[in-house]
Amino acid sequence: MTVRSESSPVGLHRVLEPAGVLPQAAWRLDASPDIAPDEVRIAVERLNLDAASYRQLHTAHGGDGAKIRAQVLDIVATRGKMQNPETGSGGMLVGTVDAVGPRSPLGLAVGQRVATLVSLTLTPLAISDGLARWDGNGEQVPATGHAILFARSVAAVLPADLPVPLSLAVLDVCGAPALTARVVRGYAGAAVAVLGGAGKSGSLALAAARRAGARRCVGVVPSAAEAGALRAAGLADEVVVADARDPVGLAAAVGDPVDVTVVCVDVPGCEHGAVLSTSDGGTVVFFSMATSFPAAALGAEGLAADVTMLIGNGYAPGHADLALELVRTTPGVRALFEARLGRD
Amino acid sequence: MTVRSESSPVGLHRVLEPAGVLPQAAWRLDASPDIAPDEVRIAVERLNLDAASYRQLHTAHGGDGAKIRAQVLDIVATRGKMQNPETGSGGMLVGTVDAVGPRSPLGLAVGQRVATLVSLTLTPLAISDGLARWDGNGEQVPATGHAILFARSVAAVLPADLPVPLSLAVLDVCGAPALTARVVRGYAGAAVAVLGGAGKSGSLALAAARRAGARRCVGVVPSAAEAGALRAAGLADEVVVADARDPVGLAAAVGDPVDVTVVCVDVPGCEHGAVLSTSDGGTVVFFSMATSFPAAALGAEGLAADVTMLIGNGYAPGHADLALELVRTTPGVRALFEARLGRD
Repeated sequence: MTVRSESSPVGLHRVLEPAGVLPQAAWRLDASPDIAPDEVRIAVERLNLDAASYRQLHTAHGGDGAKIRAQVLDIVATRGKMQNPETGSGGMLVGTVDAVGPRSPLGLAVGQRVATLVSLTLTPLAISDGLARWDGNGEQVPATGHAILFARSVAAVLPADLPVPLSLAVLDVCGAPALTARVVRGYAGAAVAVLGGAGKSGSLALAAARRAGARRCVGVVPSAAEAGALRAAGLADEVVVADARDPVGLAAAVGDPVDVTVVCVDVPGCEHGAVLSTSDGGTVVFFSMATSFPAAALGAEGLAADVTMLIGNGYAPGHADLALELVRTTPGVRALFEARLGRD
Repeated sequence: MTVRSESSPVGLHRVLEPAGVLPQAAWRLDASPDIAPDEVRIAVERLNLDAASYRQLHTAHGGDGAKIRAQVLDIVATRGKMQNPETGSGGMLVGTVDAVGPRSPLGLAVGQRVATLVSLTLTPLAISDGLARWDGNGEQVPATGHAILFARSVAAVLPADLPVPLSLAVLDVCGAPALTARVVRGYAGAAVAVLGGAGKSGSLALAAARRAGARRCVGVVPSAAEAGALRAAGLADEVVVADARDPVGLAAAVGDPVDVTVVCVDVPGCEHGAVLSTSDGGTVVFFSMATSFPAAALGAEGLAADVTMLIGNGYAPGHADLALELVRTTPGVRALFEARLGRD
C-alpha cells in the first residue's frame, strides 16, 4: 500500500478543486484508497442520505428509484463524495474499519464497525457495486465501496445492542439532542417547542429537553397522523398541529411564547414562525438545512425580538453517546424511529 | 385622514401578496399613507441601503448611477418597500415623524427626527421625488416620500450632537456591538477576532468587545490600506491582513484560536475560516447577510468544532444607545466612520 507522505488533519490534501478550500466546500475530492499516516479507511456498508438531499432527489425524479440511484452514483463518481449539488447536504455512512494509519488519533482498530459522524459532504467516497442492492427508494442506501477519515474526523463505534439501521438513523441527527440539552439547561424549568417533534431529530430533541429539565414541552407536527404518533410516544406535554411556515398560525398553536424553540422541519420558511413563538430572552435553535440566514436575521430584527438564534452545529462532545442513550431509555423515541425505518 | 380600523402589531394588515406572511417575507406591501390607530407615518429624508444590496446593484449595473437609481425606484414602486430581490436585504431610513396614531406604543411625537431600526425589507415605503437628489452612487440616498411604522417597530430619535449621516450609518449596524458585547461578557477576558474590523459593524464590534472586557482584540482586514486605517484607529491589539474566504490562511493570520469570532465581512465563503479560527467552547457571531447556513452548520460539524454559532440578530434592547455612545467616546470608531462617509 502506498502511504501518502504529507497530510492535513482537516483533509486539505484530498481537495482536487478548487484549490485551497476545505473538503466540504470543494467541488471534487480525491477518493483514492491509499491512506496517509493519520487517515483511516472504511469499507462502506451503507449510506444514510440527508433528508433534505433525498427529498430533493425524490422530487426531481418524480420518485423514480432507478433515476435516483443513477444520480447518486453520478454524484459520487463526479465529486468523490456524496454531496447533493442542489441542497449542498450529504448524510453519513456505516462500515468496517479497513485500514488505520500509524498516526491516526481516532482510536479505531481494524474490524470495528463504525458510523461516521462527519458529513458525507466532506468524506472522500468511492462506490464499487453500482448500488445494486438499493432500489433508489428511501434514505438508507446499502452500498459497497470505501471512504476516508481524516485526523480531525469523528466516528462512533456501533453499539452491539441496537440494530445497525436504527443506530445509523440516530447518529445521523445526534447533534440535535446534544445542543438542545445544552440550551435548555441554560433556562430554569424551560418551556420548549420543537417544530417537527415527531421526526428523527425532533423526537430526540424533545426527549433531550425533558431530560435537561424542561417543564413544558410542546411538539408541533404538520398532520393529524403525526400528532397521533407523537401523542402515543409520550414525549410532549402538548401536541399541536400547525404549518410551521405560517408564522401567525404557528405562534397561535404554540400559545404562550416558549423559552426555547427547536426547528427540526426540513422545509424552507419556518424562521419567522419560530421567532414569533419564542419569548424575549429566549433562544431559537435551527437544525434544518433549509434555514435561510437572512430570513432569520432580518425576521428577528423586524419583529424587534430579543431572541438568541443558533445555527445547529452537528458536533458536540459526547453527542453520539447521549443520542444512543436516549433511544435506549425512551421507548417513545425508539418507537418513532422504528416506525420511520419500517416505512423506508 | 382615513383611519384604518383593524391592524396587526407586526403589520400583517399591510401585506398584499402573498397573503398570510409577515411583511418581511411579502413580495408586495400596501404603502398607502393612511395610518391605523397603532401606526406612525414618517416623512422620509434619506435611505441608507444595506451594503450587500448596494454592492449587488452597483455590480449589476457596472457602477452606472442612473441605472442604479432607476432600479431602486422600480423596486420601491413595485414592492411598496425597498427590498433588493437578489440579496433579500434592505437598509434603514431617516425622516421626521409626520403622524402618530392614537394607539401607537412607540412613544414618538410629530416633528421628531428619527431613524428606523427595523429593516427596510418590512417597512411600507413610497417615494415621491424620483430620487432627484441622488446620483445613484453610494449607499446613502436623499429621498422624499413616506414610510409606515407598526406598533412593534423600533425607531430611534436622532441625537442632536451628531451629524445625521453619521448617526444613520451607526444605527444601521447597531445590532453588531450590542450582541458582540453580550457574547464577550460570557467569557472572562476573552480573545476576540473581528473579520472586517475596519468596516462599520466591525469597528463598532471591536470597540464593544474592548469595553465588554476583551483582553485580546484581533482585527482582520483584506488590504494593507485598511490595515493602516485600523491601526491608526487604535481599536485592535493586533491588525492582520488576510482573505477571510481562505480558511487556512485566515486561521494562520489570527494565530492562537480566539474565544469569540465576529464576522462582519459581507462576502460569501467566510464560514469555515471563522470556525477554524475559534477555539473549542468558543462562539462565532455571523453578522454578514452573505452567510450560508448550511456552510456554517456542516463546516463546524466537519471540523469537529465545538463552537456556538449565532445568527446576528439586528435587534437587542438598548442597541441604539450603546452604538451611539461608542461612536461618541471612541475617536477611532468615529474616524473610521467619517472616512467612510467622506468616500461615499
